[in-house]
Amino acid sequence: MMLGFNEPEFSAQVASAVALRPQIEELVDRLVDEGFDQVLLVGAGGTYAQMWPYEHLARRLSTLDVRAAIAAELIVSGDARLGERTVAVFTSVSGTTDDSVRAIEYCKSKGAYTVAFTGYPESPIATKVDAALVSQPKTWPFDMQLLLFTGRLLARRGEFDGYEKLAGELAGLPGVLVDVARQAEPVAAAFADAHKDNDFHFLIGGGNLWGFTYLYSMCILEEMQWLRTTRVHSAEFFHGSLELLEEDTSVILFQGEDETRPLTDRAEAFARRVSKDVTVFDTRDYPLTGISPEFRGLLGPVVLDTVMSRVSKHLERVRDHSLDLRRYYRVMDY
Amino acid sequence: MMLGFNEPEFSAQVASAVALRPQIEELVDRLVDEGFDQVLLVGAGGTYAQMWPYEHLARRLSTLDVRAAIAAELIVSGDARLGERTVAVFTSVSGTTDDSVRAIEYCKSKGAYTVAFTGYPESPIATKVDAALVSQPKTWPFDMQLLLFTGRLLARRGEFDGYEKLAGELAGLPGVLVDVARQAEPVAAAFADAHKDNDFHFLIGGGNLWGFTYLYSMCILEEMQWLRTTRVHSAEFFHGSLELLEEDTSVILFQGEDETRPLTDRAEAFARRVSKDVTVFDTRDYPLTGISPEFRGLLGPVVLDTVMSRVSKHLERVRDHSLDLRRYYRVMDY
Repeated sequence: MMLGFNEPEFSAQVASAVALRPQIEELVDRLVDEGFDQVLLVGAGGTYAQMWPYEHLARRLSTLDVRAAIAAELIVSGDARLGERTVAVFTSVSGTTDDSVRAIEYCKSKGAYTVAFTGYPESPIATKVDAALVSQPKTWPFDMQLLLFTGRLLARRGEFDGYEKLAGELAGLPGVLVDVARQAEPVAAAFADAHKDNDFHFLIGGGNLWGFTYLYSMCILEEMQWLRTTRVHSAEFFHGSLELLEEDTSVILFQGEDETRPLTDRAEAFARRVSKDVTVFDTRDYPLTGISPEFRGLLGPVVLDTVMSRVSKHLERVRDHSLDLRRYYRVMDY
Repeated sequence: MMLGFNEPEFSAQVASAVALRPQIEELVDRLVDEGFDQVLLVGAGGTYAQMWPYEHLARRLSTLDVRAAIAAELIVSGDARLGERTVAVFTSVSGTTDDSVRAIEYCKSKGAYTVAFTGYPESPIATKVDAALVSQPKTWPFDMQLLLFTGRLLARRGEFDGYEKLAGELAGLPGVLVDVARQAEPVAAAFADAHKDNDFHFLIGGGNLWGFTYLYSMCILEEMQWLRTTRVHSAEFFHGSLELLEEDTSVILFQGEDETRPLTDRAEAFARRVSKDVTVFDTRDYPLTGISPEFRGLLGPVVLDTVMSRVSKHLERVRDHSLDLRRYYRVMDY
């Protein structure tokens, strides 16, 4: 039994995301055929962080211009490449994020083609974009859709041979992730119990997990638990933040199985020499049945999101602090 | 009299950086003539953060592919565009940063043309690159050189008309920045005196000051003062971090005069509703004699670096904590 985990709902949500495969492929194929030379992955907060792994993937494998952008900054700063050959991709759980709504309008005003992934077909975001791809309500994260989108795109450009196999394996993701959640449950409970009174956490992650590191620090620990954090990229750890470490500093590392694993290993090895409270959440601990070894690294963000969702629920329990409680967001006007 | 400020040395350093103008222009012109399609701005820690404003500038004005990269990550993750048409730019005060040395070797192995700005002509970095542009020892920051480099590049591409005027005005920068430092001195002393006992600071900045926000948080407050911080982009503030604010939270905002000013204004207005300890360091407070209004925004990073260097010296004083003290960096092996 998992704390606050609605398994049928969770499975249906993940299934609804991977079920978008044919629509995503049809869309990508059409866009490739029409020709474009820039992909903007636009978000705000958590949905911005969720874009980083796919910018990172494209940078490694593709000569196409793919970059993540902050919705509110894009509107004021612009982008000299933004135009009729741009595809701008948005995600939003509720379909109502104001910064994203305005950024869609901005991108359209420049002639870009706009795409959104959301759970609400009647929402402002779904109705404003040129193409809305709708999953079950409240589906999160968007890694499944973004991986299919980016993977198909790179495959069509001849830059990613494994796409068909990967997309096939993603059909099993609902069961894979339920297994991950189940296995993570006692780990999450133990972490929360041991850190009930910690008011500061030091987070480290790299590669395609850097976005999740940022997200978990800002959108979960800071926003939902009002806990102080610092967050640093594995490759940046040795250039400043390490000096903060003390024997009792809670250090959380997110570790995956991509090419940046040695960077996080190095940060971990150092952290363990100073702190007695180092926790590594590592995708390697999870079997991911049916997922080929070469794709495990790509699934790092969604696997760790599942693991850490369990941690969040247990932090909520031990700290008696609802994840839904806000002091300011949608409480105060601003 | 300014605390620990060697005015002749500071002026000579800034002068030595802007005096690189002819060499920078000759280099950029040659690179443009030879043809290239990607500029990688590669750094580690503070020198990575220093690249962000110039990626930001290029993105606003140019269709050229210009991006900042973390040296250690670039080596393991690669970049599908990296090749013979890439110019890779490095900066290093000492010319010895190991991550950057290795990244230079990596970029050269892919055929890229490498450029470095440093203060030591015999250093590993200066001697490894294809073109080393050497300022006075210990010259920091590198904004002068990077602004001249990026400005000339965009000018040659027809994407920045103001370059000649800007470059001419930069000749007066040594005097301008000494005036900034002098004016900031009492502000810095007052901030430090009032925050002697603060063990946590919440930093906000956006646009071309986001890099400096990251740098000041990680490389100064965390690394040199062992103070806890969180750092958030102005445009991201409302998507999580704001929930951390309490009445006594020390909030530091970096404010400039570029197009993202309204994003930071909005974060400031909110922060002031919650916290009674909000400090804004604003380039608008400084006259910058001889700098045209249209360039003030571009100089935000170097102006605030000068202001905050004064703050750092006063934090060192009130906290009796040397800025040179390290627990781990170059103390422990790792």
